[in-house]
Amino acid sequence: MSSKNIPKNAMSRRDAVLSGAALLAGGAALLSRDAEAQTPPARPGVTPAPDRALSYTPVETPNLTTLPWKMENGVKVFHLIAEPVKREFAPGMVVDAWGYNGSCHGPTIEAVEGDRVRILVTNKLPERTSAHWHGILLPNGMDGVAGLNQPHIDPGETYVYELTLRQHGTHMYHPHSDEMVQMAMGMMGFFIVHPKKPETPKIDRDFAIFLAEWFIAPGTSKPNPSIMLDFNTFTFNARAFPGTAPLVVKTGQRVRIRLANLSMDSHPIHLHGYQFQITATDGGKIAASARWPETTVNVPVGSTRDFEFVADVPGDWAFHCHKSHHTMNAMGHDVPNMMGVKQGDVEGRIRKHLPGYMAMGEKGMGGMMEMGRPRNTLPMMTGKGKYGDIEMGGMFTVLKVRDGITDYKDPGWYEAPAGTVAYKLKQ
Amino acid sequence: MSSKNIPKNAMSRRDAVLSGAALLAGGAALLSRDAEAQTPPARPGVTPAPDRALSYTPVETPNLTTLPWKMENGVKVFHLIAEPVKREFAPGMVVDAWGYNGSCHGPTIEAVEGDRVRILVTNKLPERTSAHWHGILLPNGMDGVAGLNQPHIDPGETYVYELTLRQHGTHMYHPHSDEMVQMAMGMMGFFIVHPKKPETPKIDRDFAIFLAEWFIAPGTSKPNPSIMLDFNTFTFNARAFPGTAPLVVKTGQRVRIRLANLSMDSHPIHLHGYQFQITATDGGKIAASARWPETTVNVPVGSTRDFEFVADVPGDWAFHCHKSHHTMNAMGHDVPNMMGVKQGDVEGRIRKHLPGYMAMGEKGMGGMMEMGRPRNTLPMMTGKGKYGDIEMGGMFTVLKVRDGITDYKDPGWYEAPAGTVAYKLKQ
Amino acid sequence: MSSKNIPKNAMSRRDAVLSGAALLAGGAALLSRDAEAQTPPARPGVTPAPDRALSYTPVETPNLTTLPWKMENGVKVFHLIAEPVKREFAPGMVVDAWGYNGSCHGPTIEAVEGDRVRILVTNKLPERTSAHWHGILLPNGMDGVAGLNQPHIDPGETYVYELTLRQHGTHMYHPHSDEMVQMAMGMMGFFIVHPKKPETPKIDRDFAIFLAEWFIAPGTSKPNPSIMLDFNTFTFNARAFPGTAPLVVKTGQRVRIRLANLSMDSHPIHLHGYQFQITATDGGKIAASARWPETTVNVPVGSTRDFEFVADVPGDWAFHCHKSHHTMNAMGHDVPNMMGVKQGDVEGRIRKHLPGYMAMGEKGMGGMMEMGRPRNTLPMMTGKGKYGDIEMGGMFTVLKVRDGITDYKDPGWYEAPAGTVAYKLKQ
Repeated sequence: MSSKNIPKNAMSRRDAVLSGAALLAGGAALLSRDAEAQTPPARPGVTPAPDRALSYTPVETPNLTTLPWKMENGVKVFHLIAEPVKREFAPGMVVDAWGYNGSCHGPTIEAVEGDRVRILVTNKLPERTSAHWHGILLPNGMDGVAGLNQPHIDPGETYVYELTLRQHGTHMYHPHSDEMVQMAMGMMGFFIVHPKKPETPKIDRDFAIFLAEWFIAPGTSKPNPSIMLDFNTFTFNARAFPGTAPLVVKTGQRVRIRLANLSMDSHPIHLHGYQFQITATDGGKIAASARWPETTVNVPVGSTRDFEFVADVPGDWAFHCHKSHHTMNAMGHDVPNMMGVKQGDVEGRIRKHLPGYMAMGEKGMGGMMEMGRPRNTLPMMTGKGKYGDIEMGGMFTVLKVRDGITDYKDPGWYEAPAGTVAYKLKQ
Repeated sequence: MSSKNIPKNAMSRRDAVLSGAALLAGGAALLSRDAEAQTPPARPGVTPAPDRALSYTPVETPNLTTLPWKMENGVKVFHLIAEPVKREFAPGMVVDAWGYNGSCHGPTIEAVEGDRVRILVTNKLPERTSAHWHGILLPNGMDGVAGLNQPHIDPGETYVYELTLRQHGTHMYHPHSDEMVQMAMGMMGFFIVHPKKPETPKIDRDFAIFLAEWFIAPGTSKPNPSIMLDFNTFTFNARAFPGTAPLVVKTGQRVRIRLANLSMDSHPIHLHGYQFQITATDGGKIAASARWPETTVNVPVGSTRDFEFVADVPGDWAFHCHKSHHTMNAMGHDVPNMMGVKQGDVEGRIRKHLPGYMAMGEKGMGGMMEMGRPRNTLPMMTGKGKYGDIEMGGMFTVLKVRDGITDYKDPGWYEAPAGTVAYKLKQ
Repeated sequence: MSSKNIPKNAMSRRDAVLSGAALLAGGAALLSRDAEAQTPPARPGVTPAPDRALSYTPVETPNLTTLPWKMENGVKVFHLIAEPVKREFAPGMVVDAWGYNGSCHGPTIEAVEGDRVRILVTNKLPERTSAHWHGILLPNGMDGVAGLNQPHIDPGETYVYELTLRQHGTHMYHPHSDEMVQMAMGMMGFFIVHPKKPETPKIDRDFAIFLAEWFIAPGTSKPNPSIMLDFNTFTFNARAFPGTAPLVVKTGQRVRIRLANLSMDSHPIHLHGYQFQITATDGGKIAASARWPETTVNVPVGSTRDFEFVADVPGDWAFHCHKSHHTMNAMGHDVPNMMGVKQGDVEGRIRKHLPGYMAMGEKGMGGMMEMGRPRNTLPMMTGKGKYGDIEMGGMFTVLKVRDGITDYKDPGWYEAPAGTVAYKLKQ
């Protein structure tokens, strides 16, 4: 049975979610092809080249990849492998995280409304897990709350989920088994469903960014999942500035950015230089009559938000969380001794406010230090721009809008036309 | 004067709120009938059987009750008694809280737009209090901010509030005297006003859930009202999972859930398996053109949110706060030593991440421990489902949608049709 | 070139933001007139009397002022001077903050859609800074992110920003250089752009209130910018109750309140006695079809919110943040010993809950104490109303609605008509 051949309204909503008759077939044969199936695409963040034209603009997940799939008798088959992952948050900091398919966060699942999808989940973690498809309409037994809807997936086991996508939108996947620990370790990913009928106006560039917060004690590499409020590391797609890829678009393009949040806090993500409209949540499209204009989208926990705008003004536009400590790396949060750190004149300036804060002293950091600052720990503010230090970290990147570009490689810093830059007054 | 006989627009808004002429009569005679008046209804969570047909679907407040009232010369008369209350949050944990009429939180006040209501508030607390009617349009002197709008109500005193309800919606009551302490102790309740004109489409099931957070040191039973951020206990209607009643509905019913929040944080409450619309705030109905679809409703502090959906897919659907530490009980937040706790294999798994976190040791807990864990303290994750451990606590319950049920007793776990449950792949 | 003479749609959006050709002229001559230009207006919170009729109702920024400007060849020229500022939060507490033009927060910039504006920013701080115009559509080089869009402004330097306002709404300015520190010190202000075409319905009273949170250790006067979550002081326009000016309006007026938030938390600001509509964000006007009714407006970080209502019911209406510890001053947050504090019977009541919390003891506070409580520190709850203690602090003020007033001086407490105030029942 291929759901692709079923007219859109042939099944009632209820019949659709319960039509699992053909489900028990088909999973086993897949495992033999894993090695091929999970090979990440060559260019990070771009859907693997399909063997036929796509009806949609593929989503780009900066610094992450899209999950390949195979068509088996009309079913799109995906395979997620939950496992420990080493993740570089930025040069100089590698984290012992958990994720899927060698990636933290997991790769983006991308499908189309009406698709029949089968998702295999293999557990290579040292503890049991499960997979919940947040926001997806599905039969109760496919919802993935371990204990309630299915058994836990023990280490070494593979579970099979199968359903027909009756909706479109920006959704998520994450474990619902030892959930607080596994999400604190980075286990989450996008599940994006494109509409069957192409969207108008057409989206030219479509980005997806997962927001996350972590506590990783300075000098260490493991997230501490028992910290619930006072985090010290904040990421876009599990990268911290200056490790975040810029978002590169051509002047005049219609851009959508999809944000997802499974952390412990709302994140107010601010785009400079533009007004935009919030167009969707994980509950679906917001009707045009109900949309709010914003320059900051506050993404609640357990939610996604899509927003759209036309990139009509060129430049390098800051894009960041507006809780200012979420744009500071760990050393701004935890480290009492930063004597060895050189980052513009930040150090001296903070010392003016807080004489004790920066004073030399060991305070138990000795064993975790090297070259005057803790091992594997990012400076609180870092990054260099065209005009000097960009005093940011964490949840920060740059939207780069350029005329006439033909690819989306980082074009370097924006060269503003003469007379359009704030200037020093000669006195 | 009975406001029931006044045509809807006979009074201007301003006249209506100032028409207190008849107010000073009528309060005193009531006190003698208190014992009867405050008798809780037989079935928790259901309005007492009225002696005439109701124009509305009564609200159910799971694990709490609805406040009885008496009609006196065209006025609906309610009586709240502020007092210390022992509240069981879940089996094994009883809290020394404060509330109203022997209940924490207070019972739900339910009335109809256009009603003239009189509310007596008796103070049996060890300190002064007041009652504020959050979101209700009223004369300034009835607003309940002690010091500003009225004197504080001293212990032993009874105050009388009287007003005509000029609106409908989901509102709240709480003290506005030593407010931070009294709300931290649990003093709050729903004040729900049904529209005069019956709603369309008709609501079949109407639930009201109050969100709260507490700090109750492991081994103790008193909330600590000086904690402002780092809470360790999170409740739906002052119950923590597995102490929370399920929400039971019949397949196909239109369901409304009303959420209220007087804690220190926003709570993003997520319903599995459904998309819904947010239909009202404590400021009134949201116009159809302005509604957002969601799967998670982020309830700000000092606010209520109503949402509606048709329960068209049967099953056991998780319903919980999506800040994952809000679905963990106290032992996940505070307790360094959990050696004696058996809860699936959670203990060993956390120890993998945090060797020190779980290590044996006394750390001052000795006097508060019994049988290896603190007295009067819930395990961090608990509850058993059809498929094993449901690793949840706190703000978690289950929406149980079933075909053809005739009452709303807990129907047990959902039996999913064959072939609709995620399954283990045989290798 | 005067942009005032350019027909509204004569420039494309893109041309408009890049038309900086004439920008390099005009800045230098201004500095000589600084002393005059920055003189604050005589009446705090009111725009300086213009020499011609205004097309708009000037915004009032309670407890702050509006920034004067000069017209130079068709350009409105403003001058901000970043500098250390002593700010009284309430009688008895003076803070060593940072701000602009002797004011913390900075004075409100007010202009009109279509205006060409030039803003000089002089740095008199001990460290470098920059100025970002949050929410304003502008050429990339005017956006103020130091390092990315322009160099940092070193101490002693003046930078010039110039742009044409292509929008209207409630916006903000703040540094984007050592941002976390400088905003924690109070550096922020409103940038309000009125529509070119007068609004209907007309706004009679237009208020702007900046929300901020601080950590100022009891007994000290300097904000601590390394605190990121656990603040102890919460302000409206850098004043804490009872230091906040009331909002005084005449019965029947249409009132707009504009709120801005650059703190680390959402603030749910609640108005008693009214339902209102949220009408705008920093992204622009919300279409009428999309507006939500509320009694509480939850203002996210990095955002502004406007709301409107008709003040049709007289009285003294509480207006405050609903996170209850945000209406408590520092002594409710930090101070272990309050034996010397007299504030109604609060002290004894809290001691009932927390025997240890209030016990006598030095705990290192000795050197910062005088007369039994810490120097320069506000009691946790304070203020007296008509009916006794108003047990509030921090983010709290009163909307005073009165019949027939002719100025907006504080009219004292509301005298409620007989029979409209909650009363003690005689038993």
